[in-house]
Amino acid sequence: MDSSPTLPTTMRTSVLLKQQELTIEDRPVPTAGAGEVLVEVAAVGVCGSDVHYYREGRIGDFIVDAPLVLGHELSGTIVGVGVDVDPARIGERVAVEPQRPCRLCRECRAGRYNLCSKMEFYATPPIDGAFCGYVTIQTEFAHAIPDSVSFEAAALLEPLSVAIASIRKAQIVPGSSILIAGAGPIGIITAQTARAFGASEIIVSDLIAAKRERALKFGATRVIDPVAEDPATLNLDVNAFIDASGSARAVDSGIRSVRPAGTVVLVGLGIPEMILPVSHIQNLEITVTGIFRYVDTWPTAIHLVASGQVDLDSLVTGKFDLEHVAEALDSDRNDDSLKSIVYPN
Amino acid sequence: MDSSPTLPTTMRTSVLLKQQELTIEDRPVPTAGAGEVLVEVAAVGVCGSDVHYYREGRIGDFIVDAPLVLGHELSGTIVGVGVDVDPARIGERVAVEPQRPCRLCRECRAGRYNLCSKMEFYATPPIDGAFCGYVTIQTEFAHAIPDSVSFEAAALLEPLSVAIASIRKAQIVPGSSILIAGAGPIGIITAQTARAFGASEIIVSDLIAAKRERALKFGATRVIDPVAEDPATLNLDVNAFIDASGSARAVDSGIRSVRPAGTVVLVGLGIPEMILPVSHIQNLEITVTGIFRYVDTWPTAIHLVASGQVDLDSLVTGKFDLEHVAEALDSDRNDDSLKSIVYPN
Amino acid sequence: MDSSPTLPTTMRTSVLLKQQELTIEDRPVPTAGAGEVLVEVAAVGVCGSDVHYYREGRIGDFIVDAPLVLGHELSGTIVGVGVDVDPARIGERVAVEPQRPCRLCRECRAGRYNLCSKMEFYATPPIDGAFCGYVTIQTEFAHAIPDSVSFEAAALLEPLSVAIASIRKAQIVPGSSILIAGAGPIGIITAQTARAFGASEIIVSDLIAAKRERALKFGATRVIDPVAEDPATLNLDVNAFIDASGSARAVDSGIRSVRPAGTVVLVGLGIPEMILPVSHIQNLEITVTGIFRYVDTWPTAIHLVASGQVDLDSLVTGKFDLEHVAEALDSDRNDDSLKSIVYPN
Amino acid sequence: MDSSPTLPTTMRTSVLLKQQELTIEDRPVPTAGAGEVLVEVAAVGVCGSDVHYYREGRIGDFIVDAPLVLGHELSGTIVGVGVDVDPARIGERVAVEPQRPCRLCRECRAGRYNLCSKMEFYATPPIDGAFCGYVTIQTEFAHAIPDSVSFEAAALLEPLSVAIASIRKAQIVPGSSILIAGAGPIGIITAQTARAFGASEIIVSDLIAAKRERALKFGATRVIDPVAEDPATLNLDVNAFIDASGSARAVDSGIRSVRPAGTVVLVGLGIPEMILPVSHIQNLEITVTGIFRYVDTWPTAIHLVASGQVDLDSLVTGKFDLEHVAEALDSDRNDDSLKSIVYPN
Repeated sequence: MDSSPTLPTTMRTSVLLKQQELTIEDRPVPTAGAGEVLVEVAAVGVCGSDVHYYREGRIGDFIVDAPLVLGHELSGTIVGVGVDVDPARIGERVAVEPQRPCRLCRECRAGRYNLCSKMEFYATPPIDGAFCGYVTIQTEFAHAIPDSVSFEAAALLEPLSVAIASIRKAQIVPGSSILIAGAGPIGIITAQTARAFGASEIIVSDLIAAKRERALKFGATRVIDPVAEDPATLNLDVNAFIDASGSARAVDSGIRSVRPAGTVVLVGLGIPEMILPVSHIQNLEITVTGIFRYVDTWPTAIHLVASGQVDLDSLVTGKFDLEHVAEALDSDRNDDSLKSIVYPN
Repeated sequence: MDSSPTLPTTMRTSVLLKQQELTIEDRPVPTAGAGEVLVEVAAVGVCGSDVHYYREGRIGDFIVDAPLVLGHELSGTIVGVGVDVDPARIGERVAVEPQRPCRLCRECRAGRYNLCSKMEFYATPPIDGAFCGYVTIQTEFAHAIPDSVSFEAAALLEPLSVAIASIRKAQIVPGSSILIAGAGPIGIITAQTARAFGASEIIVSDLIAAKRERALKFGATRVIDPVAEDPATLNLDVNAFIDASGSARAVDSGIRSVRPAGTVVLVGLGIPEMILPVSHIQNLEITVTGIFRYVDTWPTAIHLVASGQVDLDSLVTGKFDLEHVAEALDSDRNDDSLKSIVYPN
Repeated sequence: MDSSPTLPTTMRTSVLLKQQELTIEDRPVPTAGAGEVLVEVAAVGVCGSDVHYYREGRIGDFIVDAPLVLGHELSGTIVGVGVDVDPARIGERVAVEPQRPCRLCRECRAGRYNLCSKMEFYATPPIDGAFCGYVTIQTEFAHAIPDSVSFEAAALLEPLSVAIASIRKAQIVPGSSILIAGAGPIGIITAQTARAFGASEIIVSDLIAAKRERALKFGATRVIDPVAEDPATLNLDVNAFIDASGSARAVDSGIRSVRPAGTVVLVGLGIPEMILPVSHIQNLEITVTGIFRYVDTWPTAIHLVASGQVDLDSLVTGKFDLEHVAEALDSDRNDDSLKSIVYPN
Repeated sequence: MDSSPTLPTTMRTSVLLKQQELTIEDRPVPTAGAGEVLVEVAAVGVCGSDVHYYREGRIGDFIVDAPLVLGHELSGTIVGVGVDVDPARIGERVAVEPQRPCRLCRECRAGRYNLCSKMEFYATPPIDGAFCGYVTIQTEFAHAIPDSVSFEAAALLEPLSVAIASIRKAQIVPGSSILIAGAGPIGIITAQTARAFGASEIIVSDLIAAKRERALKFGATRVIDPVAEDPATLNLDVNAFIDASGSARAVDSGIRSVRPAGTVVLVGLGIPEMILPVSHIQNLEITVTGIFRYVDTWPTAIHLVASGQVDLDSLVTGKFDLEHVAEALDSDRNDDSLKSIVYPN
């Protein structure tokens, strides 16, 4: 491995030992394998899934039964390269696409590497994440960022990638109308992304007034309090509905709000089953689907941020060092909190 | 209207007065309007929706609150043409596509005329159907059939159209695998259609052994008794699942049987809501949708039957005249019954 | 026909008698038929095809062998409605989609009404256009415009529709790169449309320096003088190439500039045949296609203009009354001219 | 590498030294690397590109400037496996997909591995092919074949893959109509494939009467002598045209034979440029594209042959051992010849 001369041999690492129990360890700095780069981590966003692993010790079938490093929204600087990688990359500021598909299976060969059955994804048991000094990633998944993109925004290209994947599935084009349920981080980023893809009508529903207000600053053209008025009764006739709320009621209302042949995209549900209005889906030939991570989104995400069409820096409401990862993980208990960033170095 | 010289002025008509109450009336033979043809009805298939209107007096929001003529699977002979239609069509044997879209609305302009909000569909309140001597239809929707296609098969091009619409949505191509729940008429025709579209693996599930046996004669390459073995546990990994059973359990199992990025098509559900495995849908990026009737299916349907790839004649298990429509509608009470045909003339 | 009370019985009409010979006639104001509206024409853009009919008396197989009214880019105010149209539309400011598809043929039923074999298109022999006081159009094709959109911009929604159809075919999404050959009116509007659809790299080539300069004001991120540097040698690796130049050399260079699996859209060629690099097309699996008018573009076009993403008003470089149609048609002889508008009333 | 016990250390290899000059060498049997299998070659089809390299010493930019082993249509038996491959594969009869994409580049990540810029393809300078005893290939690209598929047919799954890729691009579905120019091996296999994909009308044109006759035995429903009648004058109105002739005249006629919004697929052209009717392409919004090899076609190909829908065995008109590769390469000089097979062992 070629590397920068000042590379240490160990790094500080925040480790989730088990549910609710974090510690700091010194671990060896990893080595970039063939085709990989070594990235000095600059900024790591806190995701709801990190919080979930921390609080519950599991997400569905993924169980924290061994120490796990959390964090999968990250940016940094390339400080080493493995065999077959141009050493000129050392020094590049990059956003990391935190997944290692097998490249060989049926899904990978078909261009759907997000659905790779052998996927190794950061911060998903048993694969470690980025609350640590250094990580390795395949060189193709270390995406160079321009100087105008901050490390914080670069880390948040990961949730922006989720939004881009959703908006693509929702087939948003200039003039489309969309309903988004939920004005949390994903909802807010999705609203911005819908605007960047040309949506003319971006309706956001949320139970909390402050969140609705915030949505209006980030792309929403209209907000709805679903308690006051059920979207399904408003004849919204939107092209697409994206659920970023995980609420069964919101999903039902959303499905009833799209036009014939419209599209429904489920994002980040936390619950395994829901009652859906299947006759309505059938009678209007609505398409209901979901997204699972992303394929080929970073280049688009970088463009949207670098061009100013999506603002990620303003979403950062908390900053933490590695000693305060627990606080970072708990910052969502505050309604004003939107995105927390951890700085491992 | 140009017409054949022997046209009578009245016709025998089977009328559903209200739930469970049928009568025969003499009604005036209709006149073909501009762009329309007048069809002497030869054969009319009995559909589950006819049975539903007869027994329940309604389907969802469609209520039989005035006398209604049932029957929408039909064939016949053109005996008259309206203005702007070539009189040479008189004498043509045709299958009727039993819908009158508005041609002007957003959905019609987009080529999705099945979703036309102003659709007039045969045998759907308040539009009369074909259990009568003569009907009119727009000339484009009276599809000429070759001599090799019987009037019975021509009538059954309507359920075949449902199957074609489903198989298209399911994106079946040569080598695809498919699971079909339900071996009733739609399931059986769908299995044949899947075969004609090239599916290499056609798995049909049904609770009834005799129906499973029958499915094997009509395209199924494998049958499953869902009580004995839940399809979801068999790692079927199919490209697509089509539900033609209306069973919530079958739908859940079917969704869990498709591969990543696979497709689920719901056909002919009778119930408005179902519990669906939404996390599974999302994690595998499965597409769940339904079909509502059909667009541009008759030419394909005629080809499939004329070429012998789909056998509709063998599905006919009962034949009735207009005086015995009630018996025709009740023939599904016999498990051996598959399709009943009414001959109005 | 319901109509505004002040409607005159005759209207001034600019008629092309034959090649190069225009006259003004008084003609009866037409009557809105069933489903139609009568539009008092406010503004009509001059299109290259109008110029072609005027100068050459034909475009390909379309020959001016009888008097013809030119002009098909138009806006106005509804002053009358036919049967089946809501009289409340009287007074609406509208942009006219200048085509009358048959609604019934195979292409219309498939949602491709632009390819209707029985199309009646404004200002295309033998169908009259809009260099006159009043025209009729089907109510669905009289698209209401907001007050913020001028009549001039509303007329130019027609060439914007051409650009939208092209950009859709080119599959431009946020982050796409595109090469556009030709910085005339269509090239300029296409560049703006590419920007509105999210293209991050919009490269425009033109032989004339002033036109290249202008392109930079209307969306181009880079301009190329194809004489100084052949685009094909620059490794542009763009997602799509749109030709709005009609130059065989530009088309060849453009095809060689797209990436594997990229798209080439030919717009407004004047010549029937060209030498194309077919091995290159095959080896890179490039898709080469063209657009012929448009389907369902006005709603998108109105949104793009009303939201300020596309600027059409600034393209207007000449204004003429009906007596000066000949001057309007000849205004393209001036390199500074971009779009001329005729005001018939 | 795990391997069968009887593996020799050297193998007989037919080497093209330069244009027209073949020799036999003893070369070391290769070793299966990580993820690879070693295949004992059973049968190798002779392709037009082999003939081209033999006779001309080049194809376009690919030049035989060092000794080259020809042959890329092959089948055999797995006799060894590298690291990470299940030794149970030893003994499997397989068809080889003769390409090694990089798996990492933009095209590979998008599922278009055929367009990989770093592709290593058998028998394409400087990569050796299969006129030899043993070859290695990535385990995923050694496709198991059922006993019912002969080694000869398994070798010809390669040209069948070309046909499948073409038919997919042509979007052939049940009821489609297609015109195929050229009744050589690719044309014949394409006609069979069109039939398997459900085409109802399969029109094949060829200059030679005997080839037209043969086409009728392999799927064509109609044949045309393009000298006697130009297809473009016959109002064929087909959904798609596939050129397997390389004739500029056939391509021009074919393009003029497709319906509005139809598709044209160019296969195996030998010449870099052609005059195309671009106005016609534009006015009918025809899509013209080509195919370059194939992606994910072997599973479909195996199904089509195993199910009897495509007959490859009957295409074999000559059989040769390694000493007679020159004769095999020259067998196309005989009009009756369709496909020659070389047996290296």
